[in-house]
Amino acid sequence: MQRIYFDNAATTVLDSEVLAEMMPYLSEKFGNPSAIYSYGRESKQAIENARKKVARILHAEPGEINFTSGGTESTNTAFSAAIHDLGCQYIISSPLEHPATLRNVEYFEKSGQVRVSWLKHDTKGHINLEHLEELLASTNQKTFVSLMHANNEIGTKLPIKAVAKLCEKYNAIFHSDMVQTVGHYAIDLSTIPIHFISASGHKFHGPKGVGILFTHNSISCQPFIKGGSQERNKRGGTENLYGVVGFAKALEIAEIRMQEESEYIKSLKIYMMDQLKHEFPSIYFNGDAEDKSLYTILNAAFHKTDKTEMLLYNLDMSGVCVSSGSACASGASSISPVIQALYGAQMKEQIPIRFSFSKYNNKAEIDKVIDIIKSAI
Amino acid sequence: MQRIYFDNAATTVLDSEVLAEMMPYLSEKFGNPSAIYSYGRESKQAIENARKKVARILHAEPGEINFTSGGTESTNTAFSAAIHDLGCQYIISSPLEHPATLRNVEYFEKSGQVRVSWLKHDTKGHINLEHLEELLASTNQKTFVSLMHANNEIGTKLPIKAVAKLCEKYNAIFHSDMVQTVGHYAIDLSTIPIHFISASGHKFHGPKGVGILFTHNSISCQPFIKGGSQERNKRGGTENLYGVVGFAKALEIAEIRMQEESEYIKSLKIYMMDQLKHEFPSIYFNGDAEDKSLYTILNAAFHKTDKTEMLLYNLDMSGVCVSSGSACASGASSISPVIQALYGAQMKEQIPIRFSFSKYNNKAEIDKVIDIIKSAI
Repeated sequence: MQRIYFDNAATTVLDSEVLAEMMPYLSEKFGNPSAIYSYGRESKQAIENARKKVARILHAEPGEINFTSGGTESTNTAFSAAIHDLGCQYIISSPLEHPATLRNVEYFEKSGQVRVSWLKHDTKGHINLEHLEELLASTNQKTFVSLMHANNEIGTKLPIKAVAKLCEKYNAIFHSDMVQTVGHYAIDLSTIPIHFISASGHKFHGPKGVGILFTHNSISCQPFIKGGSQERNKRGGTENLYGVVGFAKALEIAEIRMQEESEYIKSLKIYMMDQLKHEFPSIYFNGDAEDKSLYTILNAAFHKTDKTEMLLYNLDMSGVCVSSGSACASGASSISPVIQALYGAQMKEQIPIRFSFSKYNNKAEIDKVIDIIKSAI
Repeated sequence: MQRIYFDNAATTVLDSEVLAEMMPYLSEKFGNPSAIYSYGRESKQAIENARKKVARILHAEPGEINFTSGGTESTNTAFSAAIHDLGCQYIISSPLEHPATLRNVEYFEKSGQVRVSWLKHDTKGHINLEHLEELLASTNQKTFVSLMHANNEIGTKLPIKAVAKLCEKYNAIFHSDMVQTVGHYAIDLSTIPIHFISASGHKFHGPKGVGILFTHNSISCQPFIKGGSQERNKRGGTENLYGVVGFAKALEIAEIRMQEESEYIKSLKIYMMDQLKHEFPSIYFNGDAEDKSLYTILNAAFHKTDKTEMLLYNLDMSGVCVSSGSACASGASSISPVIQALYGAQMKEQIPIRFSFSKYNNKAEIDKVIDIIKSAI
């Protein structure tokens, strides 16, 4: 059975060019980057070159880029730094955030270290900017704002510059989970007044187990993972050498081919949307699918029936990989907490299916998936 | 120039059999282990099989093994759990510990969350068990003891069962950094009353960027890295799938060949010790080199002269990879803090060189290194 992989928001296949770049570091180039002999310095050099490459692509300084074990560690680090080192006592976030953010907000609230406000949003997932300004203006407490650049389930994009400027105006610390946008959009951090961003290699055909935290030069924080002097004293632990090399290579490939590939992937999303609307007139899309949304994600809401309830199962049986929500959210068999939070009291019964595309997908796969759905429901 | 790699305590080359086991997960088997479709479940299965394998080898339950990004994260997690979740208010540790432990002790002391006692030790690096008991008996505060199974610079081994039993007697929580012993010694956690152990894949020919934390079944802790429900809700973040698979494979290989390889590596250490003593009569060895010591590590103290001061540099120039101390310790060009702490006021001027061996080394390499040292000093 031919597999159709439409779950690229969960993870992506490692690009073979990225693997080729990693291979020497998985075999003969294994020296510890902290060692002082030349063989170790070669590893150090590989890491510093990766850091420079990532910094250049994101328009940051090398010293602002730290490698981590992934987006979740990066987000944990940003929260720890904001609250423990920068003295934030008040968090503003959204119920539509990724579990990495939600669990941190809950933890710091529950432990009595901060108070929390949840931003209002509309049913497309756009946060309410007036509410954000109102909340920022209402306090003298040092405030930490954590809002994702694009939602990982419904694809809705944040007006990040507007948010960053509001945070700047009210002297708040701003973190953005950019796990779904780094490697997919041109990001110029020199034009956004932002303090922290999180990103993860495996979301754009890089390796799993590696991510970055951008920390703006203006702020100084203690390590979240305390230990050796790796990562310029910002993160202890022997570096994931091949992961770091792979992250930078994947980002470099993404940068070079971004225009062409983003247009291609967007055409797949639009094609699938059109086909779904044509075949299933009662369908609608969660998020702002036709406008301010990721080109990679299409979250389709099927009218709930006995048959659509079995849709995920039937797609799986036919070799189609799709999700009902985030792979990181718990209770994957019940309806996604993001979809529930999105509509609140206006929630109608639906079966949400997230289709997420990559450069390796094509229209023939979409046609096949549409046929499978037609047979199933 | 042929490289001679005698720095296996810093990191080891990835075993080609381990890499072969990882390769499918670096290419076609890339599904997100948290996804609910069968392709994701295959990845989940690979992780759970790895967990079972590791648990079996260490005589633990699968639910007691959590995969992390490495030994340093594991140690951070143990400290966080002991202090935040288990209510420990008092830490007993040793100044000879790895920076991952030392930086955590300092952090929790400085932030006022715990008070700290440092254990006495002798000049071979053995901690004073009477002092440990005295300290444990002196307090009613919940106590956290963190002592490494074997020192990463001088190789001195802890009488771990005796320490664990003392901790048990006084109801203390016991963590051991086993980064230098897992994969090198047969470890039976069912016979040691211990709460946490840290280990790292790249120290025994497994991959970098992956480690484990053993957490005894009897204790329940919150995740250190908060996020999704991965690792049975104990560690958020998409799993380092190939890292996990590689860790388990490397440990399995180590287990199968342990007796033969440990005898072989020990014979290298003894041979080098004998050659060094023969050629350089003023030499001595830091730690308990001839007795309760790792068979992988030989820390030689050269009398300090203008020539021995250049020894590391000359060895590097000749393609020999050795360290003066831990790769994770800062200020690598000055004398190791462990060696300083070891002797305290009795410190004599010396140039310490750590030679650390693996199954890939041989006596011819030792002969060559001895010749290089002879020429240099």
